[in-house]
Amino acid sequence: MNNVVFTRQCGAELKKVLKETESADIFLLVDINSRNYCVEYLNLGFIPLNNRIVLPDGEHNKSLENAVQIWQTLSERGARRNSILINLGGGLITDLGGFAASCFKRGISFINIPTTLLSQVDASIGGKNGINFNGLKNEIGIFSLPKYVFIDNWFLKTLPQRQVLSGFAEMLKHALLADEGHLAEIMCCKLSDIGSEEFLGLIKKSVDIKNAIVSNDLYDRGMRRVLNFGHTVAHAIESVAIRKNLEIYHGDAVAYGMIAELYLSVRRFGFDEKRYEAIRNFIRDKFPRYTPVTSTEELYELMLHDKKNERDGVNFTLLRRPGEFEINQYCNREEILEALANI
Amino acid sequence: MNNVVFTRQCGAELKKVLKETESADIFLLVDINSRNYCVEYLNLGFIPLNNRIVLPDGEHNKSLENAVQIWQTLSERGARRNSILINLGGGLITDLGGFAASCFKRGISFINIPTTLLSQVDASIGGKNGINFNGLKNEIGIFSLPKYVFIDNWFLKTLPQRQVLSGFAEMLKHALLADEGHLAEIMCCKLSDIGSEEFLGLIKKSVDIKNAIVSNDLYDRGMRRVLNFGHTVAHAIESVAIRKNLEIYHGDAVAYGMIAELYLSVRRFGFDEKRYEAIRNFIRDKFPRYTPVTSTEELYELMLHDKKNERDGVNFTLLRRPGEFEINQYCNREEILEALANI
Repeated sequence: MNNVVFTRQCGAELKKVLKETESADIFLLVDINSRNYCVEYLNLGFIPLNNRIVLPDGEHNKSLENAVQIWQTLSERGARRNSILINLGGGLITDLGGFAASCFKRGISFINIPTTLLSQVDASIGGKNGINFNGLKNEIGIFSLPKYVFIDNWFLKTLPQRQVLSGFAEMLKHALLADEGHLAEIMCCKLSDIGSEEFLGLIKKSVDIKNAIVSNDLYDRGMRRVLNFGHTVAHAIESVAIRKNLEIYHGDAVAYGMIAELYLSVRRFGFDEKRYEAIRNFIRDKFPRYTPVTSTEELYELMLHDKKNERDGVNFTLLRRPGEFEINQYCNREEILEALANI
Repeated sequence: MNNVVFTRQCGAELKKVLKETESADIFLLVDINSRNYCVEYLNLGFIPLNNRIVLPDGEHNKSLENAVQIWQTLSERGARRNSILINLGGGLITDLGGFAASCFKRGISFINIPTTLLSQVDASIGGKNGINFNGLKNEIGIFSLPKYVFIDNWFLKTLPQRQVLSGFAEMLKHALLADEGHLAEIMCCKLSDIGSEEFLGLIKKSVDIKNAIVSNDLYDRGMRRVLNFGHTVAHAIESVAIRKNLEIYHGDAVAYGMIAELYLSVRRFGFDEKRYEAIRNFIRDKFPRYTPVTSTEELYELMLHDKKNERDGVNFTLLRRPGEFEINQYCNREEILEALANI
């Protein structure tokens, strides 16, 4: 993906690209948050109101019903194969809009303009899109790349701190997968400077790390699994949280997951123990403290039945040191329970 | 697509492939026609009843509701990314099943076993899948190739003559796009021998022609448009037929369309007039005689607004001679009305 544009002039850059693209019609997907504020910032007034789809906020809106609403609008407004859909919002918008566009008339182009840190460094990049179905996350979806992604950290200035942390957990993960130098940068950066030119540079580095991994394995057959670091445990924690109606952000769960999976890395691959402790303390300091959502035994059971497992046992990506990882590591019950107890 | 298996032992060949493929679970999509008869012929008794999805027959079943039914079954039965869906039936089944499989967990493998001549030489080949939506054919769908296609003309022995002709029109089209020799073979073949080894050879030639075109342009950006020969007019005829509830088979419409578009080819590119008359007479002889569904003026208007047109004017693929074609030919109102009057 060479088509990620890092900019602090998103509106102007977008207009340039739209001019070059000979699109029949331009459609816009937004949520209630991005509707007014971001549309105005980007000067998107030229997109007819009838070509705009506005969705409510919240994960449960990543639904087939809302994909149908997008298809209905595209179809009724006579969108053609050279029409284009702009997805302006967080991960819900880019995931859902990317899916809907990719299935309309066997695929029209779409542009992602992520407005949260999490969607800038993760969701809008890498070609995974989809909707929740039958109570399962991303159960329906395809792989398909956006024509462009515009990343502008102007949008982040007013982002609530909890949402900033959600994206920051993925940046920390990317740094752990990359190298010592970038890890040090990330652990020293000031989140209060999120709107600065310097911070945009950090976002760019983070996106580049993900892109380098994805470009070798778009269809998630092997190496892309490294991006799952921290997520095996995170998904189990999130499953319990959803069921018990506890509010745990994705980034918090990933942060806790990274503590547990670094612990496994120490045990299995001799990841430096001092380094592990430093990262654990960094996470405990930045993120809300973990309060066990259930027994370690139940979390283990949930991991065992995760859909990403292709055989019995729990599949992890573990680290030898920052930048050096091993995919497809199967850990046993005792190892996992111990790691969970140490979050 | 090197994975099309031409066979008269479909059950045994399928079993061989399934053994080699390390699939977690096997699912089966059939319609009420293929349910008993074909499942028994293929010895598919080993597929659990709960892993089978049976759909009613008829184009209106190529719907989102039925895609949802497939997703529901896959999801509830715990299908994994290495599960596989076998689509056993006509174009409805392979189009719908291919779409559903390709969107489940961002894509599981599917195998097409087309049971009609039309789906053997056309629908099951080439990676186009989809569903009808908002009253429009294939409005929602993607490009995605089956893992295997098995073509066995045993299935065709009991096919009603009208359905045989529907597939035969596409074979004639492929022959016109290929060369004189194959065209002669097609115009001399006996449709009563449809179950013979020789006829399987003709099907193979027809599929190879389509495959050669598709492999150069899977995503339908240019050359694939040659496959649209005869279809610009056919789609207009079919649109009227649907609206007026007239029973016109796809193959009939394509046959009539080819007469009109060969006429344009004579006028525009000097396609040999004697040859044109021979093909026109051949079609008039084989297919039900064309009774105008509406005025030529209305057909022209419908073509003008066809979604495949990217600019004003009507886009045709025309022939200089068998095997030599020109895509993106725009014809004017007078030319088109004259051609339509000569069907």
